[in-house]
Amino acid sequence: MRNFKHFLPALALMAIYQPSFAQKKQFTMAEATNGMGTTLATKGIKSAGWQPGTDILWQSEKKSGEEVWTATDYSAEGGPVSRTITRGSFPDGIKQETIPAIKWLGKDGVYFVNDKTVVAGILADKKFNWETLMTLPDKAENVTVDNSKRVAWTIDNNLWMWDPQKGNIKITAEPADVICGKSVHREEFGIDKGIFFSPKGNLLAFYRMDQRMVNDYPIVKWDVVPAKAEIIKYPMAGGTSHEVTLCVYNPATGAIVTLKTGVNFKDHYLTSVTWSPDEKYIFVGILNRQQNHLLLNKYNAATGEKIKTLFEETDEKYVHPTHALTFLPGNNDEFIWWSERDGYAHLYLYNTDGKLVKQLTKGAWVVNELISFTKAGDKMIITASKESPLEKHIYSVSLESGRMERIDKGAGMHSATVSDDGKYVLDVYSAAGTPKNTYVRSVDGTVSVELMKSPDPLAEYERAQVRNITIKAADGATTLYSKMILPPNFDSNKKYPVIVYLYNGPNVQLLHNSFPESGNLWYEYMAQHGYIIFTMDGRGSWNRGMAFEQATWRRLGDVEMDDQLKAVEYLKKQNFIDPARMGVHGWSFGGFMTTSLMLRHPGIFKCAVAGGPVIDWSMYEVMYTERYMTTPKTNPEGYNKSNLLDKVKNLQGKLMLIHGASDNVVVWQHSMDLIKKSVDEGVQVDYFVYPGHEHNVRGKDRVHLMQKITNYFDDYLK
Amino acid sequence: MRNFKHFLPALALMAIYQPSFAQKKQFTMAEATNGMGTTLATKGIKSAGWQPGTDILWQSEKKSGEEVWTATDYSAEGGPVSRTITRGSFPDGIKQETIPAIKWLGKDGVYFVNDKTVVAGILADKKFNWETLMTLPDKAENVTVDNSKRVAWTIDNNLWMWDPQKGNIKITAEPADVICGKSVHREEFGIDKGIFFSPKGNLLAFYRMDQRMVNDYPIVKWDVVPAKAEIIKYPMAGGTSHEVTLCVYNPATGAIVTLKTGVNFKDHYLTSVTWSPDEKYIFVGILNRQQNHLLLNKYNAATGEKIKTLFEETDEKYVHPTHALTFLPGNNDEFIWWSERDGYAHLYLYNTDGKLVKQLTKGAWVVNELISFTKAGDKMIITASKESPLEKHIYSVSLESGRMERIDKGAGMHSATVSDDGKYVLDVYSAAGTPKNTYVRSVDGTVSVELMKSPDPLAEYERAQVRNITIKAADGATTLYSKMILPPNFDSNKKYPVIVYLYNGPNVQLLHNSFPESGNLWYEYMAQHGYIIFTMDGRGSWNRGMAFEQATWRRLGDVEMDDQLKAVEYLKKQNFIDPARMGVHGWSFGGFMTTSLMLRHPGIFKCAVAGGPVIDWSMYEVMYTERYMTTPKTNPEGYNKSNLLDKVKNLQGKLMLIHGASDNVVVWQHSMDLIKKSVDEGVQVDYFVYPGHEHNVRGKDRVHLMQKITNYFDDYLK
Repeated sequence: MRNFKHFLPALALMAIYQPSFAQKKQFTMAEATNGMGTTLATKGIKSAGWQPGTDILWQSEKKSGEEVWTATDYSAEGGPVSRTITRGSFPDGIKQETIPAIKWLGKDGVYFVNDKTVVAGILADKKFNWETLMTLPDKAENVTVDNSKRVAWTIDNNLWMWDPQKGNIKITAEPADVICGKSVHREEFGIDKGIFFSPKGNLLAFYRMDQRMVNDYPIVKWDVVPAKAEIIKYPMAGGTSHEVTLCVYNPATGAIVTLKTGVNFKDHYLTSVTWSPDEKYIFVGILNRQQNHLLLNKYNAATGEKIKTLFEETDEKYVHPTHALTFLPGNNDEFIWWSERDGYAHLYLYNTDGKLVKQLTKGAWVVNELISFTKAGDKMIITASKESPLEKHIYSVSLESGRMERIDKGAGMHSATVSDDGKYVLDVYSAAGTPKNTYVRSVDGTVSVELMKSPDPLAEYERAQVRNITIKAADGATTLYSKMILPPNFDSNKKYPVIVYLYNGPNVQLLHNSFPESGNLWYEYMAQHGYIIFTMDGRGSWNRGMAFEQATWRRLGDVEMDDQLKAVEYLKKQNFIDPARMGVHGWSFGGFMTTSLMLRHPGIFKCAVAGGPVIDWSMYEVMYTERYMTTPKTNPEGYNKSNLLDKVKNLQGKLMLIHGASDNVVVWQHSMDLIKKSVDEGVQVDYFVYPGHEHNVRGKDRVHLMQKITNYFDDYLK
Repeated sequence: MRNFKHFLPALALMAIYQPSFAQKKQFTMAEATNGMGTTLATKGIKSAGWQPGTDILWQSEKKSGEEVWTATDYSAEGGPVSRTITRGSFPDGIKQETIPAIKWLGKDGVYFVNDKTVVAGILADKKFNWETLMTLPDKAENVTVDNSKRVAWTIDNNLWMWDPQKGNIKITAEPADVICGKSVHREEFGIDKGIFFSPKGNLLAFYRMDQRMVNDYPIVKWDVVPAKAEIIKYPMAGGTSHEVTLCVYNPATGAIVTLKTGVNFKDHYLTSVTWSPDEKYIFVGILNRQQNHLLLNKYNAATGEKIKTLFEETDEKYVHPTHALTFLPGNNDEFIWWSERDGYAHLYLYNTDGKLVKQLTKGAWVVNELISFTKAGDKMIITASKESPLEKHIYSVSLESGRMERIDKGAGMHSATVSDDGKYVLDVYSAAGTPKNTYVRSVDGTVSVELMKSPDPLAEYERAQVRNITIKAADGATTLYSKMILPPNFDSNKKYPVIVYLYNGPNVQLLHNSFPESGNLWYEYMAQHGYIIFTMDGRGSWNRGMAFEQATWRRLGDVEMDDQLKAVEYLKKQNFIDPARMGVHGWSFGGFMTTSLMLRHPGIFKCAVAGGPVIDWSMYEVMYTERYMTTPKTNPEGYNKSNLLDKVKNLQGKLMLIHGASDNVVVWQHSMDLIKKSVDEGVQVDYFVYPGHEHNVRGKDRVHLMQKITNYFDDYLK
């Protein structure tokens, strides 16, 4: 829903159903760290997806030793009918060992990219007929293949296109720090791409970001000798920001038109970019730099002229647009708009005159995804956290009456993909006691086919005990969800060390009813080794509505810290917890929280590990920081209070900071400056860096990281 | 003698006379680290120096609350006569609270630099008459004031001069990476400056270093926001090196002449730069890049033409010139030349035809300094390690007979300054039992005046016990000197943890007979806290002659490690040492040795701290590395064997690496690459960095460093 790419800690979010009583295996550190994504992954059906314009579900599997596709038509008369599709012969030169991951191009067409070749296939009953569509240049990135069989990509900072008639076209020729065709605004506002083909593929809109006026920041590459500084553009809160425009390329004429967006301000944000179904117009959400005033504007795609402002959204704190418009199927005039204006993320039906037709969803809960529509176009399929902030379910919503009907069954976190014909939902879900169940369900509730109940991949392991606990926030009113992960052989007469794992920043929620119940096997590893792990989503975190989220506005590190301190009070009351052996750990915003707890509330925690921490919000990027903190100039108190550099002398206990040496999100300077301050003040902190790693330490090296963190707690907390 | 600026660990080299038996104070970490240079510094006479052309010794002191100079004429009839010189009135605008540190300009003239103003004084019996000579531009560096009252300096990479008649003259106007007037060759070969006024000041020779062809290396400045990469030129072993020439500027004509040195090779080394007394010629030692062939060339200063090669020096390993020529007083034809050609650093008398007149000193010991000559010119005054490699004494040497006479008295490390009239020596020395004694002695041995016996600044402290031990090197023959520092209350029936502190690289000797006997108060701090410290100079280290030094040639980290392992054998045989609790610590070359011991001889040491370590010699600079290791291409085995990157998987025990984040000597990449490797291999090492610090962590922050190191040993060794 919101963009939490940047801030999501790599600690994935996963729950057990029952502690095991028999003596079983313990997790290795590798299993505890990456097991759920590798050797201990829950099995499921592979490469599942609906064929366009049908109710046919495709999946890949092995049959008689050969990888094939199975396509099952759920609308076949007399019930589902499956057929097998073999891969067929690839064009010469395509070395593809396994069957490829295909993407659909219209009803019968598919493509995949092999090395740098785009291979297109046409479905001929039980196999594909393949041909080479085109071959990309070596340095091509952001490759986008359109239904029209046009292909767009970027090389360095410029945009290219391939046209079946014209071949390769270099669309832009900008100097180095003007970036075309890539995502902008540091991927905030849900932006994850910069290439927008028009619905029929006749025009190509793209972001153009001029960042020549933005501060340089050096990222040192250590994997070359001698080391080399790569200069990135990193706009810091309150500083000069980049200037983004939206351009439209017309392959027929070669002309590029720039939408006239930057009339008053150049450093605003261009969000929610959407083509009108007829390709004539582009809708852009123009958000002011202060992020409290959004104009939904309509532009003529051929001339760049602004046609009108459809409507405005304001908020005394911030407006946070993260979705494009969704036009009703076959309708050029009505679209669905996401807004948090009533305090929760809900869907609104507008027409292109800017008139609000109706609010479609409502209540003290949030819509998570707008998935699709029924074939008749009378209902939309969404997911929402309506039953509980810890769960996500699939609903149909009548566009006429607003009536909601739950499609799925079973508690937990459900994900949905809807058949293109709009009749069936592929429902994949997990919950505390459910590793992964896969169903096809009809939207009208008449059909429910179980495809797979995945076996428990952790059955052989000694599992931690999990307690779900609610805690009252520091405001005395708000309910907060938390979990306590206890050793398998937990004995309430003993005293255990406890580690609080936290994040508690915007756009992230750590706790869900999903598998494994603990949320993370490292928690269980630590529990196996005699620790209790505690984790809680305090105010400011995701999925609880605007009042909950905006409680921390202009004072990050205050309100949410008060909430975490409420949890500490709770923990200290438990007889089985040793209050002299409390630890805390978090990454990114969680690293900020961890360091803040050690320096602003010293004496509570004996030992802490803070990874990739924000230390001074004035060194974090413009888009995220100004939304939650405004600017250093307009909110000096908030910035000063949360700045940890002048608080390092308060440290009591052991604190280790860890940073990815190539971090381009929370730049390395945050922890380096804190280290410098600790030396200045004669304060001993510990430090480790991961050369070559960016904001999170991922992959194989994550095992090393978690071992490092574990060793630190073993040395100083246990 | 040799250039050990780069590699000298900041752990200064200092010895106690007697353990104290009474209960006394313990050192704080600040005292243990910086005390000998600050609060616990041995008092001595201040600003002592001889007035040119006289036997008058100047010193500064406080008399009746006022700072004054006292000038004592040791040649006065009837014995030394002192007079007081007051500071006199400075020119307007000179804010000088204390009496300035003066430098002599001829017999009666002095100068000092106040902020950017050069203030010249003329001695008028009991005071100076001062005038402003000139004012330097703000960015002036390398300020050089000549007897001729010409002043030269550099701004950025260019050379400037001030002439009393012509004012400021910009001599060079080179592009950024062509450096004029600064020291070259990374301060190897004893080079510490780039400006050479001719003897009468009529001409100005200067180094010009073109480093445009040298690799860039980024040093990140963390004290600005956002951080900024400063690009330095860092030539790595085997890579393209800079090209240095010597130029002569003639202020009378404005012409610049370049000596024709680079006829065959441009990346050779220009060493031993010396003006002939008559200003007509410049002598340059041209050392080939391979560093095994030196030409002593004579050039015409007016035309740059080479006149002749006086002589050549070759060695099958390396020639290591680090001294300029010293012409005999009043003699334009004969000079003294330093050479290690007979296996020890000795002095040779040559004439300017290139004829060897005679070898002046000889023996299995080295000359340390050529200080001066007697007035008659029949003797030179030198210091040498003739009595013991652990001591340095002052001698006169007859130029005629070679007869040596020791001038000083008392064991220890003596430093000498000789009166300009050549009759008296100021002898300042310390030894194990002698904090600091200061004498004036006549060269002929007839006069000896005690100026000061400094009190023991450590008298109130509980002192470690020191044992001087000799150990046989791994060759079974060479005697190595070592020290063991024992706890004050040492009990031979107990088992103690031991920390080996080492360096063992070229150009450095850790052990001397000086004060304090331990060599370093941190050793004593550790001894006070229950550790034994052991330190030894193995083969490859300084002051023992060429065979000793060159034993490690092309195989750094082999022979000297074998020697250190001999010491380990010795330590393990001592009943009072716990072989399960052996630690090791060193910085720079010592960091290389420490890491090498942990990775190439795992299992011996339980805990290690390596600071600023060389990890891969192919990433260290050309001049030093190729001298001792030749190139990676010609010595792959030596480079591979000493490269620690592929050996990290061998680690047993705890290893912490520490690096100055602005290190421009052993660049940060060394330890970052080892950290990267340790992560790749799943090996846990510990790390700390000092932002803003270069190769050594000096000043106040050194206390933090030594506390960090101490904590590590306390946590994992004690």
